Amino acid sequence: MKDPMKKYCVEFFPNGISVEVDEGTTVAEAARQGDVFINNICGSEGICGKCRVRISKGRAEADECTRALLTGEDVRNGYVLACQTQVHDNLTIVIPPESRTEDSLILITEAAEAHNESMDTPLVTKVYLELPPPTIEDSISDLGRISRGLKKETGLQVLDIPLNCLYSLEEDLRKNDWKLTVTIAMEKNGCWILDIEPLDTADKNYGIVVDVGTTTVVVQLIEINSHKVMGVEGRLNLQARYGEDVISRIIRASGKGGVDLLHEAVIKTINELIEKLACENNVALEKIHGIVAAGNTTMSHFLLGLNPRFIRLEPYVPVADVYPQVFARDIGIRIHPNGIMRILPGVASYVGGDIVAGVLSTGIARHEKTGCLIDIGTNGEIAIGNNEWLVCCSASAGPAFEGGGTRCGMRAAKGAIEKISISNGRIKYRTIGNKRPIGICGSGLIDGIYELVKNGIIAQNGKFHRDLKDIRLTQVDDVPEYMIAYPDETETGTAIVITQSDIDNLIKSKGAVFAAIKSLIDYVGVLFDEIDRFYVAGGFGNFLDVPKAIAIGLLPDIPEEKIQFVGNSCLTGARMCLLSKAYLDRSLEISRSMTNIELSNYQPFTEEYIAALFLPHTDRRLFPSVRY
Amino acid sequence: MKDPMKKYCVEFFPNGISVEVDEGTTVAEAARQGDVFINNICGSEGICGKCRVRISKGRAEADECTRALLTGEDVRNGYVLACQTQVHDNLTIVIPPESRTEDSLILITEAAEAHNESMDTPLVTKVYLELPPPTIEDSISDLGRISRGLKKETGLQVLDIPLNCLYSLEEDLRKNDWKLTVTIAMEKNGCWILDIEPLDTADKNYGIVVDVGTTTVVVQLIEINSHKVMGVEGRLNLQARYGEDVISRIIRASGKGGVDLLHEAVIKTINELIEKLACENNVALEKIHGIVAAGNTTMSHFLLGLNPRFIRLEPYVPVADVYPQVFARDIGIRIHPNGIMRILPGVASYVGGDIVAGVLSTGIARHEKTGCLIDIGTNGEIAIGNNEWLVCCSASAGPAFEGGGTRCGMRAAKGAIEKISISNGRIKYRTIGNKRPIGICGSGLIDGIYELVKNGIIAQNGKFHRDLKDIRLTQVDDVPEYMIAYPDETETGTAIVITQSDIDNLIKSKGAVFAAIKSLIDYVGVLFDEIDRFYVAGGFGNFLDVPKAIAIGLLPDIPEEKIQFVGNSCLTGARMCLLSKAYLDRSLEISRSMTNIELSNYQPFTEEYIAALFLPHTDRRLFPSVRY
Repeated sequence: MKDPMKKYCVEFFPNGISVEVDEGTTVAEAARQGDVFINNICGSEGICGKCRVRISKGRAEADECTRALLTGEDVRNGYVLACQTQVHDNLTIVIPPESRTEDSLILITEAAEAHNESMDTPLVTKVYLELPPPTIEDSISDLGRISRGLKKETGLQVLDIPLNCLYSLEEDLRKNDWKLTVTIAMEKNGCWILDIEPLDTADKNYGIVVDVGTTTVVVQLIEINSHKVMGVEGRLNLQARYGEDVISRIIRASGKGGVDLLHEAVIKTINELIEKLACENNVALEKIHGIVAAGNTTMSHFLLGLNPRFIRLEPYVPVADVYPQVFARDIGIRIHPNGIMRILPGVASYVGGDIVAGVLSTGIARHEKTGCLIDIGTNGEIAIGNNEWLVCCSASAGPAFEGGGTRCGMRAAKGAIEKISISNGRIKYRTIGNKRPIGICGSGLIDGIYELVKNGIIAQNGKFHRDLKDIRLTQVDDVPEYMIAYPDETETGTAIVITQSDIDNLIKSKGAVFAAIKSLIDYVGVLFDEIDRFYVAGGFGNFLDVPKAIAIGLLPDIPEEKIQFVGNSCLTGARMCLLSKAYLDRSLEISRSMTNIELSNYQPFTEEYIAALFLPHTDRRLFPSVRY
Repeated sequence: MKDPMKKYCVEFFPNGISVEVDEGTTVAEAARQGDVFINNICGSEGICGKCRVRISKGRAEADECTRALLTGEDVRNGYVLACQTQVHDNLTIVIPPESRTEDSLILITEAAEAHNESMDTPLVTKVYLELPPPTIEDSISDLGRISRGLKKETGLQVLDIPLNCLYSLEEDLRKNDWKLTVTIAMEKNGCWILDIEPLDTADKNYGIVVDVGTTTVVVQLIEINSHKVMGVEGRLNLQARYGEDVISRIIRASGKGGVDLLHEAVIKTINELIEKLACENNVALEKIHGIVAAGNTTMSHFLLGLNPRFIRLEPYVPVADVYPQVFARDIGIRIHPNGIMRILPGVASYVGGDIVAGVLSTGIARHEKTGCLIDIGTNGEIAIGNNEWLVCCSASAGPAFEGGGTRCGMRAAKGAIEKISISNGRIKYRTIGNKRPIGICGSGLIDGIYELVKNGIIAQNGKFHRDLKDIRLTQVDDVPEYMIAYPDETETGTAIVITQSDIDNLIKSKGAVFAAIKSLIDYVGVLFDEIDRFYVAGGFGNFLDVPKAIAIGLLPDIPEEKIQFVGNSCLTGARMCLLSKAYLDRSLEISRSMTNIELSNYQPFTEEYIAALFLPHTDRRLFPSVRY
């Protein structure tokens, strides 16, 4: 009989952390127990392949069915998926850089900056205090007693406190034997008290991070003390009904009450996501005291109820790019009434806090070698730079990469086709969560269009070969479309197709992104070769097939190993700022030091855009490795 | 014919300021024009005698009828009342210390601390900006532009801004040609923006100061730029209906909703006074951006809506003694919605911000020589100290000095009898504003009781001589009372009397105050002789007849010249804090450095109290100069 309590030691590198775990524990779980952070994009479902680690010593039992996500070479070299591999031996595990999450970045940075105490100061901190009751010899005020206790415990001076914390303080303190938990927000010269709760709730410190996307809003619930992401939820921004892109929404907002309408829509979206997460994780909304949001400049304006109308008019001036700190309640966000909200600062009207978050999370602004961040959403934003300089630009990409503006497009959620391959007239696809397909998300669309060119179904100008005999190619009202999933395969009973118009839209989108990259590279006078690392961010799926993204001309033709898909870098940056005020300060530095290049007035961009409306590009010399 | 434009030069000392004025201008008006501050307690009505100045060179025309307020020696020495004296010659004027207001103290301090820039930083400051409109080369955000302009103008970094300032900012700026006035509140490392108004309103910077007394609430409207008191209004605290003293109000507040009731009453009192002042002076409420209040600890609690119930229970602990900064709107005060409110910090449950304000305004804590402040209101509070140490105590005096708890008592308002003399059975009295009498205020009561003893109408134990034949002495239900004004003399047609019970109450009140002074003096081990200056503050009238106050045993028997009546020192201290943030900081230092002696547990106090229930005192050795 198997001993259920058999223990093994698992050592992780480069962290150098060892944990002892029960036999049968997964490697991913072992890592969590040791606070070693490994990518877990799919929630340990074994479908994203992002938790690839190498077993350098010891024997592990890997789930066979996940082998599809590993190459033969991977398997020979000892790679496994951490979430699908059980511990049955003492193990030494090496985590490759691409499988580390930004949380490990935080840990590494914290280690490096160990002397900088503020590095481990989250936006909100909880401190448990047990105070001596007042006597005639020690009769200072209740608040004075708390301030004195807090100073003794943390060394921090209390700067101020919201009045509502004092309303039943005298009763709460005496009822609970002078045991209390103070929630504080750190400042340079002290701290603000945000909340005083009875008894010890210091282990219940929750925060929220929000990626306020034009098309999609994504929210994470964070356990601040452990840095743990308790859950993530995304949904269509309810503003979508008022227009697909920022320009149409700004126009919609220009009428009477229009700003309120768009403000309320995004607040409703966020509140619903927070409530869902709080409910699923059994966390009361009043236990959430901090929220960090990032979005493009227009979204940040609507979030606060500011009027972004001059963003679309030359000289493109926002009301603000550094936003006031507000109580979440002031803008209708339902967490603790004194919960504070920070919105990451932006750079210009079309380069917002989402890009600042991306630059922060990828570390571009800290490294000597030049890096490039390409964030592909409804807008495509590019930032290039290093620890000495930073430039950025943006171009409207349209909603195609996030599943908008295409017939069967959807956001990267369960049931979305995220991977397509076509071979000898046979189609294989994979959906997120292995569900019956509902639509195609951005990464699926990129795959699909690549496969259509590769198989000679569309030409390199994106047009279907009308005379082609292919049972999946049909004409509806004289417009060709290609069948990806027949009605009987899908969840909805409706066929999933890629239409001529979808392809035209996607080519325009990828053309705008590539033209922006090329324009910026040329503007700063660097060569693609001189860029050490390309970080690709975006909400178009859980992963991006980099060679295919190059092959359609979305990404430049550079060695694959230089390109790293970083997923939702906006959310990552926002989370870093929630967990460490030092990152919040750094986000302000980044926003201040980044130079925005306004492409709308930049003649070469228009030329680059037209040249890029081809698969991969009209200038084949730019894509030497691409062969169709 | 007289030339109406004839000009004369008036030079003021010790200020050394000269002004040229039209012939016939009063000396007080000339001082105002030169920003020289002279006491003006009665509003230039020539009745308080507090603007006594000496003409050392030149000829002036003094109003004869005001001579009553000057002694013969004064007149011989060239003293006049500044408000009743017209300029008909070039004059050199010397302002004696007792006629200088605390505003001159501020000026003098400012001169002395000229290198300390923050000394002239009021709670709220207005800065007018004309900004360059945005261009494609200079397209920073609207808020960024304002911050940049403000930094250029003042050197100050903007720390934060309330969200509501940004709501129609983009429109206001463009409509008004980028001309705007920013209202800021200075902090150590920068400033907060409180308001952004179109065009130039920098000269309209108003503030409010409030003395939140248990019996009386007094409000001043201040023009911050010029330090000018535009108006003052006082009225009974509407809380009075819930009890006469703090203890009865705390008990009243202990029921459900009780705190709200008392909170709303005091807020209503203050709002009505502010509205009256604003209306009279043609100042819109939204032009008032700052308010400083001071009161005893219980009043400060009710003001903020805090529950003071543990103030009356041993060990007498308030919820707070340093109060949060709030937006005035948060507690229902109607000024500009972003107007900020500071409440001066207190020391203990029975020594509040009013005493801290008094210590601040008298300068006790800055001088080497020991000073003593005696603030006589519903509570009597005493502070003794110098620039090295400060101790304080308080004793319940009851409302008699503020016109409460006596049959015909009233606060020091127009129509109040403030001065009484009895000679050969004839009574002379003077009312505030020379109106028909309505009642007797504190100073009138002190005079009255002195005169009753002096004329052998009451004995030194305060009891009427029942067998005395005096037409004014009557018995109502066997209780004797003395007629001060017959019904046909009064405004109301009701007789104004002093009853046995009034006298008994006043003796208890003065006994408590004197016992507190004596106890504290003995506690710290100093002698009366060692105290350089006694400052007497209180709301019992526009002036205090010091010899009579000594003769009834309210004040210790010390040389009259050492005693200075400073009027409402609470209001003065609050005004100093509105006009200079440095004083606000100093008020915090004072509150932290002052040691409270709790008399309720201090046995000698009870003995002193009983010994003091006599006119002037059971121990005649303490009052050698008093002869009846």
